[in-house]
Amino acid sequence: MSQSDLLTQLMESLRCLPGVGQKSAQRMAYHLLERNRDGGLRLAAALQEGLQRIGHCALCRDFTEQERCPICASSARDGSLLCVVETPADRLVIEQATGYRGLYFILQGRLSPLDGIGPRELGLDRLARRLAEGEVREMIIATNPTVEGEATAHYLAQLARQFEVKPSRLAHGVPIGGELEYVDRGTLAHAFGSRTDMP
Amino acid sequence: MSQSDLLTQLMESLRCLPGVGQKSAQRMAYHLLERNRDGGLRLAAALQEGLQRIGHCALCRDFTEQERCPICASSARDGSLLCVVETPADRLVIEQATGYRGLYFILQGRLSPLDGIGPRELGLDRLARRLAEGEVREMIIATNPTVEGEATAHYLAQLARQFEVKPSRLAHGVPIGGELEYVDRGTLAHAFGSRTDMP
Repeated sequence: MSQSDLLTQLMESLRCLPGVGQKSAQRMAYHLLERNRDGGLRLAAALQEGLQRIGHCALCRDFTEQERCPICASSARDGSLLCVVETPADRLVIEQATGYRGLYFILQGRLSPLDGIGPRELGLDRLARRLAEGEVREMIIATNPTVEGEATAHYLAQLARQFEVKPSRLAHGVPIGGELEYVDRGTLAHAFGSRTDMP
Repeated sequence: MSQSDLLTQLMESLRCLPGVGQKSAQRMAYHLLERNRDGGLRLAAALQEGLQRIGHCALCRDFTEQERCPICASSARDGSLLCVVETPADRLVIEQATGYRGLYFILQGRLSPLDGIGPRELGLDRLARRLAEGEVREMIIATNPTVEGEATAHYLAQLARQFEVKPSRLAHGVPIGGELEYVDRGTLAHAFGSRTDMP
């Protein structure tokens, strides 16, 4: 041991953060000790309080420390639209990028039978009860366009139809501002096949 | 506000870490909430304890929660050798890479008059008292090979000579395993000029 125990412990603990290896942990520990002890102590308090108190919204399964998240609790949102996403980060990016004013349901994952993630783990029983209530008219399925995300979307669309809710899916195609030369083949083939008439 | 207050606060606090922007902070917060709440709570405790209790070693200025760091407190180290480095990270890498068994002095910076960092801020008065005690025979100056690091090295060498201590500097040259084609010109010119006889 050529180093303080507490410092070693601090560096080790920082490695629980994603993308932080030994070298970054070391740099972070020294940075906090040398330049920002107050910020580090605030981070300690935020971690302590956040990780102990943040749970899931009873309606949409998003993270919140309340019984219901601010979106579900809001009376200004349109309850006839329900957007289903895989993760809270997906919900956040849709909220930031679009003018969507409906509600959300967060799966906290995707169907993946090999990993033991089935409909129950994604809270689809709760989603079904919600659809059965009859308020939702359209379910916007915004799972990722990956193999597992597509399988989940297919399953969700069937569920929606059972309750006479209209399922819809985000459009696929060439990203806006992208150059055709750098778009992957699958996307380009899809965009070509689903070309739209110009007005 | 479309997001839990505690979650927003957690994401903001994570940005005190170096190299962590809004997107990484978001990813870290979700990762801890979804997969590693225990690790996050351990991190909170390590930050709290570390940032409050870790101070500086009375002899070498390295970080430690004791009066003296483990290296200064060790009776197995050679007190006649003193290696002067800019930061604790430099001390750590020398300790890991070399078989050095002497002691260290950590400047916690480099001479930089424009930023108001002079000899006093680097603890050079304390270093001078240490050299005056007469135990140190050789001072290995391992500041960075930058303009400021070289100026600091020059100043330190003068200080050493005042107390009849032999100053030495890390060798410069072509890195081992490097290819000449990719070595910068300054290093190559220096290595060429300081070529050594082959045995």
